[in-house]
Amino acid sequence: MNEKGVPHSAILLVSCSDQSGLVATITRFIHENNGNILNLEQHVDPEEKVFFMRLEWDLEHFEIPLSTFGETFQRLIATRFDMEWSLHSANEKPRMAVFVSTLSHCLYDILSRAHAGEWNVEIPLIVSNHQTLKPVAEKFGVEYRVFPMTPDNKRTQEEKELALLQTYQIDFVVLARYMQVLTSEFLDHYPNRVINIHHSFLPALAGGKPYHSAHDRGVKIIGATSHYVTAELDAGPIIEQDIVRISHADSIDDLVRKGRDLEKGVLARSIWHHLKRNILVFRNRTIVFT
Amino acid sequence: MNEKGVPHSAILLVSCSDQSGLVATITRFIHENNGNILNLEQHVDPEEKVFFMRLEWDLEHFEIPLSTFGETFQRLIATRFDMEWSLHSANEKPRMAVFVSTLSHCLYDILSRAHAGEWNVEIPLIVSNHQTLKPVAEKFGVEYRVFPMTPDNKRTQEEKELALLQTYQIDFVVLARYMQVLTSEFLDHYPNRVINIHHSFLPALAGGKPYHSAHDRGVKIIGATSHYVTAELDAGPIIEQDIVRISHADSIDDLVRKGRDLEKGVLARSIWHHLKRNILVFRNRTIVFT
Amino acid sequence: MNEKGVPHSAILLVSCSDQSGLVATITRFIHENNGNILNLEQHVDPEEKVFFMRLEWDLEHFEIPLSTFGETFQRLIATRFDMEWSLHSANEKPRMAVFVSTLSHCLYDILSRAHAGEWNVEIPLIVSNHQTLKPVAEKFGVEYRVFPMTPDNKRTQEEKELALLQTYQIDFVVLARYMQVLTSEFLDHYPNRVINIHHSFLPALAGGKPYHSAHDRGVKIIGATSHYVTAELDAGPIIEQDIVRISHADSIDDLVRKGRDLEKGVLARSIWHHLKRNILVFRNRTIVFT
Amino acid sequence: MNEKGVPHSAILLVSCSDQSGLVATITRFIHENNGNILNLEQHVDPEEKVFFMRLEWDLEHFEIPLSTFGETFQRLIATRFDMEWSLHSANEKPRMAVFVSTLSHCLYDILSRAHAGEWNVEIPLIVSNHQTLKPVAEKFGVEYRVFPMTPDNKRTQEEKELALLQTYQIDFVVLARYMQVLTSEFLDHYPNRVINIHHSFLPALAGGKPYHSAHDRGVKIIGATSHYVTAELDAGPIIEQDIVRISHADSIDDLVRKGRDLEKGVLARSIWHHLKRNILVFRNRTIVFT
Repeated sequence: MNEKGVPHSAILLVSCSDQSGLVATITRFIHENNGNILNLEQHVDPEEKVFFMRLEWDLEHFEIPLSTFGETFQRLIATRFDMEWSLHSANEKPRMAVFVSTLSHCLYDILSRAHAGEWNVEIPLIVSNHQTLKPVAEKFGVEYRVFPMTPDNKRTQEEKELALLQTYQIDFVVLARYMQVLTSEFLDHYPNRVINIHHSFLPALAGGKPYHSAHDRGVKIIGATSHYVTAELDAGPIIEQDIVRISHADSIDDLVRKGRDLEKGVLARSIWHHLKRNILVFRNRTIVFT
Repeated sequence: MNEKGVPHSAILLVSCSDQSGLVATITRFIHENNGNILNLEQHVDPEEKVFFMRLEWDLEHFEIPLSTFGETFQRLIATRFDMEWSLHSANEKPRMAVFVSTLSHCLYDILSRAHAGEWNVEIPLIVSNHQTLKPVAEKFGVEYRVFPMTPDNKRTQEEKELALLQTYQIDFVVLARYMQVLTSEFLDHYPNRVINIHHSFLPALAGGKPYHSAHDRGVKIIGATSHYVTAELDAGPIIEQDIVRISHADSIDDLVRKGRDLEKGVLARSIWHHLKRNILVFRNRTIVFT
Repeated sequence: MNEKGVPHSAILLVSCSDQSGLVATITRFIHENNGNILNLEQHVDPEEKVFFMRLEWDLEHFEIPLSTFGETFQRLIATRFDMEWSLHSANEKPRMAVFVSTLSHCLYDILSRAHAGEWNVEIPLIVSNHQTLKPVAEKFGVEYRVFPMTPDNKRTQEEKELALLQTYQIDFVVLARYMQVLTSEFLDHYPNRVINIHHSFLPALAGGKPYHSAHDRGVKIIGATSHYVTAELDAGPIIEQDIVRISHADSIDDLVRKGRDLEKGVLARSIWHHLKRNILVFRNRTIVFT
Repeated sequence: MNEKGVPHSAILLVSCSDQSGLVATITRFIHENNGNILNLEQHVDPEEKVFFMRLEWDLEHFEIPLSTFGETFQRLIATRFDMEWSLHSANEKPRMAVFVSTLSHCLYDILSRAHAGEWNVEIPLIVSNHQTLKPVAEKFGVEYRVFPMTPDNKRTQEEKELALLQTYQIDFVVLARYMQVLTSEFLDHYPNRVINIHHSFLPALAGGKPYHSAHDRGVKIIGATSHYVTAELDAGPIIEQDIVRISHADSIDDLVRKGRDLEKGVLARSIWHHLKRNILVFRNRTIVFT
């Protein structure tokens, strides 16, 4: 049990070519070492014949310490099936940095949730290309660091940011309406660990002014999309999407207003799934076990 | 009163440049001729400064016969404000043709609704490029005419279709998963009177295989879009859209299955709004008063 | 492979007290007999400590014939863990009867889907307490039998209906806006095999006139609920629900119209899940694996 | 123009028995005094024959000062038609008090929106029966006053609260998960000016533990409802509702988590409509013009 009386559990994420006996082998291994399975979710991609699993088990009577689990699992099982896998303790408290520009709604929502204890996360750092949101950071007592961006200084500024992320031991980054495109050099340091919120229903209306485009096109529904950031703009693996109805009576200001609520909700649910280790990524798509 | 005891009413759709006194002038005209206003909906496009109105009033004590209303309204009001307008009796029963290819779900839904009395419409004719759905038409006793299409015969076949539509006195056409692109020559005969259902959330995933594209892109929501057909493919004024959640566990077959229900629902609601005269079109967008 | 080239698969539904080793034991049994697991979904009720599983595996190389699977599974596994279980072939084509009164929208939708091949089901029989919908049955060539109901004859009429269901070898019954309450004697013959569609968002607005109640209460959303029928009215295990937004501008007629589309969609999705063996029932709740 | 360059406009809310000439008379009055109508929305309750209107017009060239509009409108129009009406300037900045107990999510959301400038409102005061949320108030620099409640002191505490509301010139009150029932004596001071958020889809699951009830009943959708508070618990006029899908896999904790996001969204949209003067109340129902 941890301090809250919640049983301490471990989460194993596995993927490999689909083959007979995968579930039986893994569950038997956990069972024979006295781990009680709390949740098991699996998916087989029927076209690519790839197997995915998320397994959570109670550690109370489990006989293998987490510190040596990896070596044992690799030797006994993972090598045989050529698995990719990762192990996580449900008690881990990942460290998250938030990148923002000038819009505050997602930042307020993230900091409020963290302070209210909704998430098992640390937020030690906010990075921005503007001073604008410093007062929000100060309200919540979070370090706020500004790196102004010009076409010429992007790479040097990003290197400073990366150094800062390392100093703060940041595990993953959330772009909360951050209006700069990150270079692939930056992203290489955080593969599938930079989450962005895009203010449209991707793949429709990619690019910079989706609410204007939605209004011009006369759509009846607008959306928001969160995704892991990859080098190709607005094209990374989608984590979560949501929509809201609009009508001819909605101005662009109304779209922006309704979109704000979508954005913060979609981004928050993505962070939740990332923190719960519900997500696997495969070929630019996500498997989100819920 | 009509035969159902429903008060007989008239619907006036108006658009013109926005200017002072429009609502006051029109409502006063109806009022002074003893028409009781049942519904009034108006919208001003704030960028283009264009005024739109849908006005419905009770004809019971109205002193101007519908047959002469147009001449009077044009002389006293419409000319002064440079209005475009159209007048409709709520008792009209428009005549609708359905175009289909091989998928039956929208056709079944349309014919079921018409036969159950949900809509005030006549459906005397179904047109197809395949024999496949003839048995469905026969179940409901509707004429089914086949015009096979090849790259070479499209214009001549369309001319035969147009002649047939004229014979059957068709007011508007519904493309219920009809897999042929209509030429602009055909469409010129039915401006804003051909309704299509597209099996994606436009403007995302236009084109022929949206469910495959949605699956490849890993979206978490799929949609359907109905629109008036214009010469530019999948780009006409959107009438209605809807969505359904999907997950990694949904195969393309699941997307097709979930999409079918979206498509028939979205198309049916469009037909409803078209029949109720709820729709005005302006610059490739719709105003849908609901 | 069956005739469509779809691999022939088996589905096992299991429930029992939660205990260590359940997943490992069952999956190992399937694996060791050369069954390739296609889908595995499990759920543990954390309060009641009950385990539920739906397991689907490919029969192509499976070494135990389905005809003897039950005896083997019971002897080797089910007895030891005190399991309740049922086995189904994915190729089964269950036989369904539809009960209706006078409203046609759900009936049309069900017959359309069955005729379009959406469902793996036979519908040999429609039962009603009114003649009204006989023409719909005739369109689709389905036997339509009328049993008028009075307060005095309900039990004797139900006995005739039960005899007819037996004659037609009916596996499950769908109440498609059937306006009679079935007695518990009737229901005892079809436990968790009578599906009803209720025209409200249960548990709100149970009873006979939910659209009127919704309008009186001024709700902004209406719903529909499908559930397995139990002796207590409108209180059986909920299978599926859905909602639609309404406003002050919607009359009761509008609610009825919007509700019709909800009802047929919710009912159809329930039938789908029932046919796919996605549903387990526990203590008046359903587990629906999707 | 006001300081933001937004045209200064007035909003008139009207209700009366439906009668011929209402729209014509009112719009003519505005027009003849050089008011340009920006928005007109009207609704007639078809059962009760009551007329409702929300009219917004540009004040730039309007010839009647707002200070004397009421007297003029009453004399020339309102008396003749026996109207109830209220006049509002779109530039008004109403003063809102928030009542909370111990849950912070709605409070954070409200204060964040106010500070981000989403709403045209002042929030000078937070009232609570607990100290718990004082740090949240302090983050945002808002006065936080605690009135502990016991069965014996409710009336005296409420009187102190009312005095405080008067001191702070509070226009309306928002109960942001405030866990005390207000007496009818309190409510008499703020008719249709106390907004509550209830954590269920009313009228289902009224009362104190709706998430537990939803879980026990096995519903597939949960909701949240905001309403004006009346003396009868959870029975006041509904302003806004929303829902989210749940499944058997969701624990009560998951319902609470998903419900939190519903609650804050529904409450925020209600406050928006209240501030925009979009709401009229009639017989325990709302007309919400959007």
